[in-house]
Amino acid sequence: MSEPRFFAATPHDAAGDTLHEECGVFGVVGVTDAANFVALGLHALQHRGQEAGGIVSYHPEEGFNSARRFGYVRDNFTKQSLMETLPGALSIGHVRYSTAGSKGAAIRDVQPFFGEFSMGGAAIAHNGNITNANALRRELIERGSIFQSSSDSECIIHLMARSLQRDIPSRMEDALRRVEGAFSVVAMTRTKLIGVRDPLGVRPLVLGKIGEDGWVLSSETCALDIIGAEFIREIEPGEMVVITATDGVESSHPFRKAPSKFCIFEHVYFSRPDSIIGGRSVYETRRQIGVELAREAPVEADLVCAVPDSGTPAAIGFAHESGIPFGMGIIRNQYMGRTFIEPTEQIRNMGVRLKLNVNRALIRGKKVILVDDSVVRGTTSRKIKEMILDAGAAEVHFRIASPPTAWPCFYGVDTPQRDKLLAATMSEDEMRHHLGVDSLKFISLDGLYRAVGEAEGRKSSCPQYCDACFSGEYPVVPADKIEEGFQMKAAE
Amino acid sequence: MSEPRFFAATPHDAAGDTLHEECGVFGVVGVTDAANFVALGLHALQHRGQEAGGIVSYHPEEGFNSARRFGYVRDNFTKQSLMETLPGALSIGHVRYSTAGSKGAAIRDVQPFFGEFSMGGAAIAHNGNITNANALRRELIERGSIFQSSSDSECIIHLMARSLQRDIPSRMEDALRRVEGAFSVVAMTRTKLIGVRDPLGVRPLVLGKIGEDGWVLSSETCALDIIGAEFIREIEPGEMVVITATDGVESSHPFRKAPSKFCIFEHVYFSRPDSIIGGRSVYETRRQIGVELAREAPVEADLVCAVPDSGTPAAIGFAHESGIPFGMGIIRNQYMGRTFIEPTEQIRNMGVRLKLNVNRALIRGKKVILVDDSVVRGTTSRKIKEMILDAGAAEVHFRIASPPTAWPCFYGVDTPQRDKLLAATMSEDEMRHHLGVDSLKFISLDGLYRAVGEAEGRKSSCPQYCDACFSGEYPVVPADKIEEGFQMKAAE
Amino acid sequence: MSEPRFFAATPHDAAGDTLHEECGVFGVVGVTDAANFVALGLHALQHRGQEAGGIVSYHPEEGFNSARRFGYVRDNFTKQSLMETLPGALSIGHVRYSTAGSKGAAIRDVQPFFGEFSMGGAAIAHNGNITNANALRRELIERGSIFQSSSDSECIIHLMARSLQRDIPSRMEDALRRVEGAFSVVAMTRTKLIGVRDPLGVRPLVLGKIGEDGWVLSSETCALDIIGAEFIREIEPGEMVVITATDGVESSHPFRKAPSKFCIFEHVYFSRPDSIIGGRSVYETRRQIGVELAREAPVEADLVCAVPDSGTPAAIGFAHESGIPFGMGIIRNQYMGRTFIEPTEQIRNMGVRLKLNVNRALIRGKKVILVDDSVVRGTTSRKIKEMILDAGAAEVHFRIASPPTAWPCFYGVDTPQRDKLLAATMSEDEMRHHLGVDSLKFISLDGLYRAVGEAEGRKSSCPQYCDACFSGEYPVVPADKIEEGFQMKAAE
Amino acid sequence: MSEPRFFAATPHDAAGDTLHEECGVFGVVGVTDAANFVALGLHALQHRGQEAGGIVSYHPEEGFNSARRFGYVRDNFTKQSLMETLPGALSIGHVRYSTAGSKGAAIRDVQPFFGEFSMGGAAIAHNGNITNANALRRELIERGSIFQSSSDSECIIHLMARSLQRDIPSRMEDALRRVEGAFSVVAMTRTKLIGVRDPLGVRPLVLGKIGEDGWVLSSETCALDIIGAEFIREIEPGEMVVITATDGVESSHPFRKAPSKFCIFEHVYFSRPDSIIGGRSVYETRRQIGVELAREAPVEADLVCAVPDSGTPAAIGFAHESGIPFGMGIIRNQYMGRTFIEPTEQIRNMGVRLKLNVNRALIRGKKVILVDDSVVRGTTSRKIKEMILDAGAAEVHFRIASPPTAWPCFYGVDTPQRDKLLAATMSEDEMRHHLGVDSLKFISLDGLYRAVGEAEGRKSSCPQYCDACFSGEYPVVPADKIEEGFQMKAAE
Repeated sequence: MSEPRFFAATPHDAAGDTLHEECGVFGVVGVTDAANFVALGLHALQHRGQEAGGIVSYHPEEGFNSARRFGYVRDNFTKQSLMETLPGALSIGHVRYSTAGSKGAAIRDVQPFFGEFSMGGAAIAHNGNITNANALRRELIERGSIFQSSSDSECIIHLMARSLQRDIPSRMEDALRRVEGAFSVVAMTRTKLIGVRDPLGVRPLVLGKIGEDGWVLSSETCALDIIGAEFIREIEPGEMVVITATDGVESSHPFRKAPSKFCIFEHVYFSRPDSIIGGRSVYETRRQIGVELAREAPVEADLVCAVPDSGTPAAIGFAHESGIPFGMGIIRNQYMGRTFIEPTEQIRNMGVRLKLNVNRALIRGKKVILVDDSVVRGTTSRKIKEMILDAGAAEVHFRIASPPTAWPCFYGVDTPQRDKLLAATMSEDEMRHHLGVDSLKFISLDGLYRAVGEAEGRKSSCPQYCDACFSGEYPVVPADKIEEGFQMKAAE
Repeated sequence: MSEPRFFAATPHDAAGDTLHEECGVFGVVGVTDAANFVALGLHALQHRGQEAGGIVSYHPEEGFNSARRFGYVRDNFTKQSLMETLPGALSIGHVRYSTAGSKGAAIRDVQPFFGEFSMGGAAIAHNGNITNANALRRELIERGSIFQSSSDSECIIHLMARSLQRDIPSRMEDALRRVEGAFSVVAMTRTKLIGVRDPLGVRPLVLGKIGEDGWVLSSETCALDIIGAEFIREIEPGEMVVITATDGVESSHPFRKAPSKFCIFEHVYFSRPDSIIGGRSVYETRRQIGVELAREAPVEADLVCAVPDSGTPAAIGFAHESGIPFGMGIIRNQYMGRTFIEPTEQIRNMGVRLKLNVNRALIRGKKVILVDDSVVRGTTSRKIKEMILDAGAAEVHFRIASPPTAWPCFYGVDTPQRDKLLAATMSEDEMRHHLGVDSLKFISLDGLYRAVGEAEGRKSSCPQYCDACFSGEYPVVPADKIEEGFQMKAAE
Repeated sequence: MSEPRFFAATPHDAAGDTLHEECGVFGVVGVTDAANFVALGLHALQHRGQEAGGIVSYHPEEGFNSARRFGYVRDNFTKQSLMETLPGALSIGHVRYSTAGSKGAAIRDVQPFFGEFSMGGAAIAHNGNITNANALRRELIERGSIFQSSSDSECIIHLMARSLQRDIPSRMEDALRRVEGAFSVVAMTRTKLIGVRDPLGVRPLVLGKIGEDGWVLSSETCALDIIGAEFIREIEPGEMVVITATDGVESSHPFRKAPSKFCIFEHVYFSRPDSIIGGRSVYETRRQIGVELAREAPVEADLVCAVPDSGTPAAIGFAHESGIPFGMGIIRNQYMGRTFIEPTEQIRNMGVRLKLNVNRALIRGKKVILVDDSVVRGTTSRKIKEMILDAGAAEVHFRIASPPTAWPCFYGVDTPQRDKLLAATMSEDEMRHHLGVDSLKFISLDGLYRAVGEAEGRKSSCPQYCDACFSGEYPVVPADKIEEGFQMKAAE
Repeated sequence: MSEPRFFAATPHDAAGDTLHEECGVFGVVGVTDAANFVALGLHALQHRGQEAGGIVSYHPEEGFNSARRFGYVRDNFTKQSLMETLPGALSIGHVRYSTAGSKGAAIRDVQPFFGEFSMGGAAIAHNGNITNANALRRELIERGSIFQSSSDSECIIHLMARSLQRDIPSRMEDALRRVEGAFSVVAMTRTKLIGVRDPLGVRPLVLGKIGEDGWVLSSETCALDIIGAEFIREIEPGEMVVITATDGVESSHPFRKAPSKFCIFEHVYFSRPDSIIGGRSVYETRRQIGVELAREAPVEADLVCAVPDSGTPAAIGFAHESGIPFGMGIIRNQYMGRTFIEPTEQIRNMGVRLKLNVNRALIRGKKVILVDDSVVRGTTSRKIKEMILDAGAAEVHFRIASPPTAWPCFYGVDTPQRDKLLAATMSEDEMRHHLGVDSLKFISLDGLYRAVGEAEGRKSSCPQYCDACFSGEYPVVPADKIEEGFQMKAAE
């Protein structure tokens, strides 16, 4: 393609060493000033996307209105002057991941996307990733569609525009049947709030109730809590719900039935610990991962510490199971929420120190078990280990609350290319050596499955979750990536 | 239409009392850092559009890049950091009119528009107005195009996207053959700079040469001067030029031949006095209007003054012809270029005083002839008259350098609705009474034609210019407006 | 005083329900680009002051330079363009507390303050509060000094300006001998870094070493860690150190000797848990407070939770001592570091919900012990209790890691007026009733003293710490406040 | 001095080629929301200072409030939100000159300055320049005053602070008696508006009346017009007026009597043409300068043009007297009011082209007389000449509406150092040669005096005006400058 910057390439976190959920979606119908609720919901979902946020609302007299902004929800969608431009009882919103330094990031890539059809307008917000977006885009351009963004999600609205169906929900069905990959979509017309989950149900989407006639769709339950909405149920894999304030929820299953493949990493890292997914508390699952880890990989030590904040529940579980005291060996600087913009060279080199400091008095002379959520490139893990040893720890034992991350995710998570993943190129022992720690243990895939409640562990014939990032078994063929040269795991 | 604010209605200057050109276009090929030249050209064309400006450039390695900003060219496109994002030897730009307080103004309405086609991208900048845009838009939406702006100009890029032609200039021909109204378009592909003028040639477009291989397209010649380019010739009505640095200018005439109808108001007000249009100096034309006015409507007085700055050349001509001394009776505050944002109530009520002050010492006791370019709503004229009388003038005689403006323009000028035009509802004598001046005279249509060099005056069978705003004779049927209820002048 | 807004009154957190340290100070000498180190140090001290920060540096060729900004260190002092304006090997900085919504907050109130004397310039940064500032200010104004800020700290620089001493350290001694109250001052001349602590040593100040010739002064040790400096020792109460890169540290004790009265609340809340003060780990002290609390006020329960983040170490200690499991019952939204600006009414009413969410799955049906650091007005405690009960807790037991806060602090902490302090108007039982919890217990003063290592508890004749906020025994008479009507505790 | 940047050196326009008035002052008492009137007044005085503006107001309940901003009045003091912070019926303001690119420009240098004295606060705004400021500053610092700005004007407020007088007007008298140089001061206390002019009356200051009880002080009468105030009279040289809404104007003459030395350059260039100074219309004076020039230095030509806008009245006068037609040969871009910030290299090199364009069609083949207000460095004049010749002029004759500017001004005008003034190093003939024009003539000093109404011309024993910039005869010894090495003209 010859227009690299006008339509930016898919962003990825070149410098970072964590996996990032790329989106959170939220929608409300049947409450006054619905956009205010959407702002609160997006604030609660901020961990799913920190680069930018957008809200669309509809008011019978004012029509569709939209605001899309870079930066945090709290810094944009809390201003009276802005929120007043988003009137109406129906509103949806979207947060997207922060791609630090990505040249091509542009406000036009920020969702929700809007399309005006002959029967009226519609807006959509998409969490997930379309694995055949390149082919769809080529086809649509050939037929005369003009893309405004670099986002794969924009295909959906163009497919809808070209559908021959006479109502918008039917057009959305048409469009999503052409789409492969992972999608949890929240959409709206002038009267309807619509939610859809792909047949595998890779990304979460839940339904809530607020007030007399109000309904909510959200990526996670924690965003229901913030507005005082009641959690009703999860949207099912392959389900579409069409909701109005007057008629409530109409459900249908327009897609071919398939075995559920919910992303197991949502449990490990992406979702907030106070969310409930698949009927399970995320916090409790993480605590249980710690318990499993302590059983699988015990070690004699004085102290269990977490790499904050994501490793803390597993560390608590590890400490509880092992009987070794839990302590705050690493303190997080709470003023680091936002990425430093235009940092000086010196500060860029400071790395994790700006964010984390070792509690030297606690660590000194101790044998320390350090529980982290995952190892991606390994760069952060090395720095943390150095900080711990500098502070005088006698021994450092890493325990990782997920199996080795050896494969990229193509379903809505920003992962480095495969050759940048430490576990793709090294054995566990090589990694231990590379990180320079006294021991390094990852939870087993079976242990992880036990922690999410599968007492028998992972069924290797048809796993209960999408665990492609650990197993290399991709439930949907990543067509675009294969076209770009990605090599699938050889069949065994 | 039920989405009023997402796609803002066509902006119009609710408070203002002047007519505004809605756009200026500029393009360069064959010079290093072409976007810098475009920025300078747009600065020279700022009077044609003060709300916002945009620039697109193409560089073989960096692809298409784009920047669109609200505000003046000088405040945005002078920053090194921004201009560095617009590399390449091919670039086009656009300035658009400032619609003070328009709620719906959005950055997505700012041109150039960009479309990615299967054979590569193209960007277009349009000066003029498409009179069948509503019908085109409905048709395109019906077929699945998604509009991103409220601009009529966006139709062009969608028509191009759907053309079956295999190269972009041919697609542009296809598209523009479907379009009615006025258009001077500057466009670019990865290698070509393209210019087109509608068959009537309503809006100006000129060709210039810069350096060895460089070519320039511009709305006016004054923008050639600022970059030191040589004025070659006007693009002809109905002509398309396709320009490359290597092969120079290729000309074609893809449209049906029609009699030229250049906008006569460009001479009266829109164009800059240092521009040359139709082979005539705008300044000299305006001075000549003053001469004609002095002949048509002489009056005994002590002083000829202009309403600055646009009335000055005609006032100089009037003074010269009449022998009455020219003086600066009204002084313009040079710090008012930019519209006050968020003004206090008190300041809003100050009206013209913030912008103009009477030179009391000069005016006191004098019989004053005041030369203004036009009367639109008449509100400003009344205030100026009051200021002059407050300052102690003995008599005030208005001489207007254009005929009564009795009809709206539908070809790219922002005019109030017909019933807001003073001359649409009042005779010259009623207007004199309404304005409360000692005498009021407009130049005759024939006088105006003489001033632009038509010695015989206006040919009533087929006028040499578009003068619809004075005569009500529209050379292109304003289809959209008629659909919205506009009543054409009854045939006589 | 008749000029309330030009010189804003001392800010206080009208809405808030926590106590706030008002300042952090930091200084470096003997390293290249010292201001970069100061920026990092201030970032680590951000919890001591979130409203604004300032840095002054000195370079032999560039002279003194200064930058003062509202907002977080990370958002201002990380920009290359700004940091380049602060060259030199000697630099000091200051962060101050955020007074949300205070009308009078002005950039001129942001330290360091600078004064040009006949022997050269000096800059000072002050942590603490001068208790006779009103009287000093009146006297200085009477003699012709012009104050530029509303800050009590500005008195110091004016006193220095009027000193008859011929060198700046001696002028600083002169000035500080006139000053009553609490002060930890970091100052600089063209060649010297100066640190002083008041005779009682109320606020902390520590000395560190960096590189070959570099020296650091900082409010807390955690800011030494971030730049990799070595902790040398605390500056002693009543000590002044004058430091140069060439001659190192010269110490003197210019003030009358007095028993040390370090602020015990620094241990409870203000300082970061990874700092070491008075030879003790703050984290360990807080954990020990939890242990003491568990001994003093045991209760049968299923779960020990913290009000994050400040209550966590005490909760860990309580859990460990009591054997009741520790769990994350309340989850903190990590994107709330910054105060919402211009929030909508709806969001203001959301209160703590924006910041905290209950982990419903964990809490439901449980008897919960909730450990918080303090109770100030009690408004937050009530809301947290309600959230916990809404989530289905069976019982809620509050355990507070400090004694009842019944008296305001006049030594550099922003406290509500006495009648706004819950503990000033209610007994413990009344508070329990008011908060609507099943039980409420504060640690005893003796328990707190034991937790900070005083095995015998508090010596009532001459307490080892300043504990005025609990005891009402003020080690320095708050002269200004008494003048304004404050009533000291009656002698018993 | 060793602190160059913290206290910036006095700014001067390193790149520019015009002289700049450094300040305008304005004050109102006795009207509701006085600050709104001050904002309008400052807008009308913007030509006297374009860098920054400040307003102070007093309200009995709200005290003194202040706002100081970089940029134009119209961009800052038109915002409702800002103006609401400046309540009260008494207000003063100040605009200061823009020093493009000056590193040290800081908001603390923006007036009015404020001082809190024991009897209440006072604010002052100063137009002019104190010629003994360095000595005063040294003395004040020695005694313990702390300066906050690099402004000479700050001395006044410190001198007031140290006065032993018991009321503020008396303290101001005390202070101004110590001050040498030029000053027109507008000041305010909680109840009084105060105006003072130095004994020579170098800078203007006028008194106006508004409404029932309102009074105005302003640098020029054009600022009375904008608020509809009536011009009463000029403040006399050496006069002090103390004004209250209740008691009106009290006048005194506290200084030693001296012959008036009003700045003659105010007539030539600084003041607005619609102002009246010394009982004369500035416009008429300038027109008369043109008349005198035409008499002194006639030349055969086709066209008289002005270098806009300042040369226009003289050009009109020249044309009238000579009978040669006046035409707009150079067109000014009206969008250049604001200095380009961060311009690209290319744009910096464009120089005057961004601002001015030649009306080629008018100029071609003509003998042109070009009337400009002054020649400072000559760089602009050269570029304009080149533009005129490029456009095909047959001959170019420069006529300058002021005598050769051969000496810097030390009384409140920003002038280059003497060796940068073209007329300081070249004879008229050398200048003609340097500029490459066909002829070059300056008006004579006597001609200029005749134009300002002195029929006999300049009295060489005791000139009626300050004309030091032309004659080198400084009515006040510039003590600071002599200390810095400036060489006065040798006595003849």
